[in-house]
Amino acid sequence: MKTKIFYAALVVLFAASAAGHYLHWGMIVNFILSAGAILLLAAFLGKATESVAHYAGERVGGFLNATFGNATELIIAIFLVKEGMFEMVKASLTGSIIGNLLFVLGLSLFCGGLKYKVQSFNADLARMNGSLMVLATIALFVPAVFFNTHTISDASVTTLSLIVAGVLILAYILWLVFSMMTHKDILAEEQKEEEPTLEEAPAWSKSTSILMLVVATVMVAFASEWLVGTLDALSVQFGMNELFIGAFVIAIVGNAAEHAAAIFLAMKNKVGASVEIAIGSSLQIALFVAPVLVFVSAAFGNTMDYVFSIIEIVAIMVSVFIAKSISQDGKTNWYEGLLLLVVYVILGASFYLIPA
Amino acid sequence: MKTKIFYAALVVLFAASAAGHYLHWGMIVNFILSAGAILLLAAFLGKATESVAHYAGERVGGFLNATFGNATELIIAIFLVKEGMFEMVKASLTGSIIGNLLFVLGLSLFCGGLKYKVQSFNADLARMNGSLMVLATIALFVPAVFFNTHTISDASVTTLSLIVAGVLILAYILWLVFSMMTHKDILAEEQKEEEPTLEEAPAWSKSTSILMLVVATVMVAFASEWLVGTLDALSVQFGMNELFIGAFVIAIVGNAAEHAAAIFLAMKNKVGASVEIAIGSSLQIALFVAPVLVFVSAAFGNTMDYVFSIIEIVAIMVSVFIAKSISQDGKTNWYEGLLLLVVYVILGASFYLIPA
Amino acid sequence: MKTKIFYAALVVLFAASAAGHYLHWGMIVNFILSAGAILLLAAFLGKATESVAHYAGERVGGFLNATFGNATELIIAIFLVKEGMFEMVKASLTGSIIGNLLFVLGLSLFCGGLKYKVQSFNADLARMNGSLMVLATIALFVPAVFFNTHTISDASVTTLSLIVAGVLILAYILWLVFSMMTHKDILAEEQKEEEPTLEEAPAWSKSTSILMLVVATVMVAFASEWLVGTLDALSVQFGMNELFIGAFVIAIVGNAAEHAAAIFLAMKNKVGASVEIAIGSSLQIALFVAPVLVFVSAAFGNTMDYVFSIIEIVAIMVSVFIAKSISQDGKTNWYEGLLLLVVYVILGASFYLIPA
Repeated sequence: MKTKIFYAALVVLFAASAAGHYLHWGMIVNFILSAGAILLLAAFLGKATESVAHYAGERVGGFLNATFGNATELIIAIFLVKEGMFEMVKASLTGSIIGNLLFVLGLSLFCGGLKYKVQSFNADLARMNGSLMVLATIALFVPAVFFNTHTISDASVTTLSLIVAGVLILAYILWLVFSMMTHKDILAEEQKEEEPTLEEAPAWSKSTSILMLVVATVMVAFASEWLVGTLDALSVQFGMNELFIGAFVIAIVGNAAEHAAAIFLAMKNKVGASVEIAIGSSLQIALFVAPVLVFVSAAFGNTMDYVFSIIEIVAIMVSVFIAKSISQDGKTNWYEGLLLLVVYVILGASFYLIPA
Repeated sequence: MKTKIFYAALVVLFAASAAGHYLHWGMIVNFILSAGAILLLAAFLGKATESVAHYAGERVGGFLNATFGNATELIIAIFLVKEGMFEMVKASLTGSIIGNLLFVLGLSLFCGGLKYKVQSFNADLARMNGSLMVLATIALFVPAVFFNTHTISDASVTTLSLIVAGVLILAYILWLVFSMMTHKDILAEEQKEEEPTLEEAPAWSKSTSILMLVVATVMVAFASEWLVGTLDALSVQFGMNELFIGAFVIAIVGNAAEHAAAIFLAMKNKVGASVEIAIGSSLQIALFVAPVLVFVSAAFGNTMDYVFSIIEIVAIMVSVFIAKSISQDGKTNWYEGLLLLVVYVILGASFYLIPA
Repeated sequence: MKTKIFYAALVVLFAASAAGHYLHWGMIVNFILSAGAILLLAAFLGKATESVAHYAGERVGGFLNATFGNATELIIAIFLVKEGMFEMVKASLTGSIIGNLLFVLGLSLFCGGLKYKVQSFNADLARMNGSLMVLATIALFVPAVFFNTHTISDASVTTLSLIVAGVLILAYILWLVFSMMTHKDILAEEQKEEEPTLEEAPAWSKSTSILMLVVATVMVAFASEWLVGTLDALSVQFGMNELFIGAFVIAIVGNAAEHAAAIFLAMKNKVGASVEIAIGSSLQIALFVAPVLVFVSAAFGNTMDYVFSIIEIVAIMVSVFIAKSISQDGKTNWYEGLLLLVVYVILGASFYLIPA
């Protein structure tokens, strides 16, 4: 009964936001409708993710969630790349990375930590994630330093961007081989003995769960885009600069799916899945989505270089440092979540105060 | 008997340095008197700290010692802030942080390590300390980068400084809640089984110990200030620049209390208390004392910004890196102490050679 | 029989490359001859190292290999210093450090990891190595920052260079005392129980093994120099800049000995010895060879300063970060090797694209 009302509300709100978007009902109304739809969709998505995680394990469930979440961002970014709006693409990639590492992970650890004193996940995975984050930072940092200390031709910039993008994609594909195939067992969550499968049986079968995950992700993608469409107009009223909108507003809204699922799972003591969603998602963006966009832009005949601005690199670098420092022992608590959120606030305030 | 002579000498020297200071006996005489008084006071303070640590545990004892030590610095800094001498405040805060992380911790681990092959303390605490150090570095680094790469209005600088200071104070207060209340047990020192409480009973009762700690700290504070007063004149003779005086000379002398207690405890194999004093003290300065000064200056009507100079940030950053690298496994040895001291020498030589 | 043919081929090729070098047979011929000789010599050296490691343990064997390998580089560098070619010295030191940390270690872990799922070595040693790498980075970073943010006299630069070089040499000597004497046992490899000394008995006695190690190292040194002599001419044809030649081409060829031995040992599951060769060698260069060259140059009357260029420091810094992140748990796998190689490719591409 309660479930039926929930799904009815979800469908109605989703349809209403669609109508509002395509019929141009007005920004304020559209904002409220799509925000409401995302709220319900996030709960739906969390349920689907948990159900998939039940069948496939925390890591694969988290990976699927992160991938579906980033598929949306990739699609939106491809349209931006086609228009040559490279700076906005980079700002939103930056925002996704730091949003996942600081805001999603921070809120998950904080909320989960308020309920469970110490939560733990696979420490080997934590360390491998840490090394991948370091690689992602180096791949951003080195080209930027070289371009800022030497006069390098545009042709060389393009060449280096393609080489860096190429090796990052290779590294990411081999990471999937490593983590899903050759060393799958080492990175799996230890069975938590103390909780003797009292866990309720999931509502859906395995294939239904996967279908629901796909459906929920696609719906969130649409609703997010409709919401983003309203933000531009709203933000002008509040005088925010583009970097802040790209890196914070769009990133928070556009990642609502990951946010909801990760926090939901942390509060069920499945912090391993939360980490996989949050850190896994940001690694996917840095090591796969961003490099793919370089090649996509090259295919469009106008190669986007892989040179981010100084403040973007600094924001990613400090996010990686604090996230690595906190996660590397495979144990988390509410205070570690708070530390991530504090860094997020510091970065947010700094971005906000940059003149438009 | 021996004890009585000690206290008699302490009182006499303290009184003499007071007389020298207020009656202007001459810089050289005053320097010798107050330095001598500090030497004896440091031993007194070390004894008081150890006694408190006996009753309250290594961590709380170390925390009290660090807090009383920093109270002095806070008071002196408030007077400087009132005069608008912001650069000197920042230099001495920087000096306190790196002095504690490198010199105090380095000497403690070195001396303790010569006596005990491997000393250990709570590894969870080590990791949490490491994450807090990373936060402190980020809070210094991010505003400086933003101000150096964008033209930002003074009003925005003030706003960002207040926001950063505010979240740091919040983070520090919640750290006390976390470490002293919700997760106290996890961060406590494991009882060292091998030393079966052969430990001599402390000379003082619990309340006397705390009183003695307060008295010793206050006396050290006064004597330190008298000594500092003589340094300015002396340093002119040796041609030292202000940054070196603030960051090295004043910081070493002004932290004599922490130095003595930390080394004393390390040589009694209570390295957990040494770490709490050294790292705890520098965290308190970075996360509490410095941010409080921002608000104090705002209350005086002239807000001190939270933007340190590049070399100050670099000095703190490298100190944090090496201290984190050395401490994070919760095990220490003499060579790790030496590494900290080597970095201190490199920084000291660099600061010294900056033209006045 | 097979062994005899091997040694005969080795002697013939070595003699031929000597003749080619001194009789100026032509660059292409000389390149092929000396490259071939190095290939066979590397196998010979690997065998000698393994034999020494059998008698002396993995660590001492690795240390001897690294030291003999670096002796060559020190000798070549002294000649360059005498000529005042400081920039080329620094480029080749940089190349040696990153070549060992990324290329040698990366290939070793990758090849070893393809054969053994997880390889492990002493985690305490890994952490100490990590802290030493941090010290090496700080010693490069701090002087460069100070010189780039202040106008400092040449005399001060010389003074600081000598101080930094002096404390680094002191730190390195005390590291040998620590790791070979006072804390030798803590840093030793645990006996791998699962391999019940089925290990074949080495072909040589203890003293013969050491003699062979010396002979092999000296021969590699000569052949490397002959090969390097041909590279200059060849590289002009391919339009490479000096920094790339110094940091990549010369470093790869000049470290052929370490490369071969480290990979050879990793594939025999002696990854502890590989790490000692790769990380140990780069630490020796950063903490001993480079500082000694400062004093050598001072003895020649023209002190080389210890200020590296920004891109050299960045290259070393990122190499240290990723190597530390990967090695600090004392466990390795093929993917961690790959990560090091990916960073090496990114740095190599960046250096290559700098205009000549």
